[in-house]
Amino acid sequence: MERQDKDLAWMLQYENIAWYEDGRVDILDRRVYPIEVRKVSCRTHQEVAQAIKDMVTQSAGPYVACSMGMALAAYECRGRAEAEQIAYLEDAAYTISHARPTTTWRMQKICEACLVVAREALASGAADVSEAIKEFSIEQNNTRYAGIGIAGRYLAELFPSHGTVMTQCFAETIVGMMLREAKKQGKDIKLFCPETRPFFQGSRLTATVCHDMGFDTTVITDNMPGAVMKNEGVDIFTSAADVICCDGHIVNKVGTYQIAIAAKYHGVPYYVSGAPDQGHPTIDTVHIEMRNAADVLEAMGTPTANPNVKGYYPAFDITPPELVTGVVTDQGAFDPYKLSDYKANPDDFLV
Amino acid sequence: MERQDKDLAWMLQYENIAWYEDGRVDILDRRVYPIEVRKVSCRTHQEVAQAIKDMVTQSAGPYVACSMGMALAAYECRGRAEAEQIAYLEDAAYTISHARPTTTWRMQKICEACLVVAREALASGAADVSEAIKEFSIEQNNTRYAGIGIAGRYLAELFPSHGTVMTQCFAETIVGMMLREAKKQGKDIKLFCPETRPFFQGSRLTATVCHDMGFDTTVITDNMPGAVMKNEGVDIFTSAADVICCDGHIVNKVGTYQIAIAAKYHGVPYYVSGAPDQGHPTIDTVHIEMRNAADVLEAMGTPTANPNVKGYYPAFDITPPELVTGVVTDQGAFDPYKLSDYKANPDDFLV
Repeated sequence: MERQDKDLAWMLQYENIAWYEDGRVDILDRRVYPIEVRKVSCRTHQEVAQAIKDMVTQSAGPYVACSMGMALAAYECRGRAEAEQIAYLEDAAYTISHARPTTTWRMQKICEACLVVAREALASGAADVSEAIKEFSIEQNNTRYAGIGIAGRYLAELFPSHGTVMTQCFAETIVGMMLREAKKQGKDIKLFCPETRPFFQGSRLTATVCHDMGFDTTVITDNMPGAVMKNEGVDIFTSAADVICCDGHIVNKVGTYQIAIAAKYHGVPYYVSGAPDQGHPTIDTVHIEMRNAADVLEAMGTPTANPNVKGYYPAFDITPPELVTGVVTDQGAFDPYKLSDYKANPDDFLV
Repeated sequence: MERQDKDLAWMLQYENIAWYEDGRVDILDRRVYPIEVRKVSCRTHQEVAQAIKDMVTQSAGPYVACSMGMALAAYECRGRAEAEQIAYLEDAAYTISHARPTTTWRMQKICEACLVVAREALASGAADVSEAIKEFSIEQNNTRYAGIGIAGRYLAELFPSHGTVMTQCFAETIVGMMLREAKKQGKDIKLFCPETRPFFQGSRLTATVCHDMGFDTTVITDNMPGAVMKNEGVDIFTSAADVICCDGHIVNKVGTYQIAIAAKYHGVPYYVSGAPDQGHPTIDTVHIEMRNAADVLEAMGTPTANPNVKGYYPAFDITPPELVTGVVTDQGAFDPYKLSDYKANPDDFLV
């Protein structure tokens, strides 16, 4: 299976996200990238599950790690009787998919698909199905990247020929795809990336992808988007989303909401990329996770506040449809109030 | 001269800001407070100037350090002939007042006032005028605190009986004064303090003052004010200002503008405290200082971004009068469009 991500930023090329080879899975440690470039090397599928749990990789990263972890599990039980291998893989599927509660459902779907591949390969006489699962993982990623590439094209088409785009947090593959498409379309884009406290995904990950894709990239602190819109003339604000509710409410990294408010005030359009989540017909079905308050009282491990005060850390905020210009999907851009026009594919379980 | 700041937070009590005693000036190092509590001990007035230059103290701190530095200079030249002491003090005044360009004018005024005190004391036969200048410094601070106390009272009167107030950056003495007044008025206030990147003045200084004054204090990152207004029901947003233009434009720490936009969107009133700056009749007279872009690419000395990307650091942003509910001064609250009603005192050169 050929890689189709050669012209993407280094960290988005999937052998750098998570890769099975020689009886181990290497996962890029996004907690420190690019300040440090190191990979966590997992010798067992349990170590893969632990790495996912420990947030070594996030965003879409766990889905790649998940299928590559299943390939490793197949290597671990290679040569055993067919039924024994299946039982081992079912057990591994449970362990890996339960590494993080919020992504369990999607990871279960991926593991089930890996099990189908394993059963077929074992039935046709293979003693070691790890390579078959790895091939499947790559194929799934090619499919995912192709779909996101289409959304990226629609998004890039909305960019001006020369202009300024503001990002928010780390939008994973779509950042690279939209910039690849922008390049193809000959668009001359300058990017502003808010840093995204408390974990700096904007300054570490998004800005790195933007820079690696060859674009003029400027990092700002999270108190600057309004001033940048006023001073520098931002043309488009864009983000991905953790959930796009079918009623047009956007759940995304905290901060999205206030940038969307500032964008509306300045007449800057806000485009969110992704697909309406059929599991969330309205915003009332979404529970906003509160994370560890202590995280906002430090930066890169150094205390930043009086130790006696409290912190407050809602992981996400909610942007209402009135602040959203369009939802850009693989089927084009949709009015946030007309997401029912999007034709959902029930088999599309990959991010 | 009796201290009048005993019931203020520790760091606002002026012997903790900067204090002359036993031939030295001790200045609280606000660059690290309260993560570390240390004082920079200056043995010469040149060391005081260097400390001001190095931002050991900021906001109104340099004005206290300035007069206490003049007391130290007087100690250095004690016992010499009267003309020689005056020449020495004039030289010291130049050195101290030129430590930072943006505050030179105000520090020159303070130094001139110290020189008047010195001349009078020398004329009446004193050999060492350091204590006279120190007395004057304390008197000036009492006057300043009394004036700010009045503005703090007007501000606290705008608070609800039970409610939530959001701050921005470090508003120096007014934070302590408004909270002292809020306590006197029996107001039950919970505070949210955005951290204020890149230097964390909000999480280090403002939150410490709020906590030390006995209030429920929560630090948030700079991407959260919008979400906090939506989730927690903020009653008032308040900040001080670096410049209040007479046309109602507010120049303050970057981030103020986008919080004011979010406040407007949520119907939260924004009150700025201070006095209209007669030197700035309109916003066109204000030059926004661009600071070192590298500062936004690190946090507490640790790199936070890809080393190849650019940073962008406007020190301040501009909030237009349409986003300002009122300017709270020692003469009460003013409509931002009617600041000409404020009766400016030409001798009021202290912050």
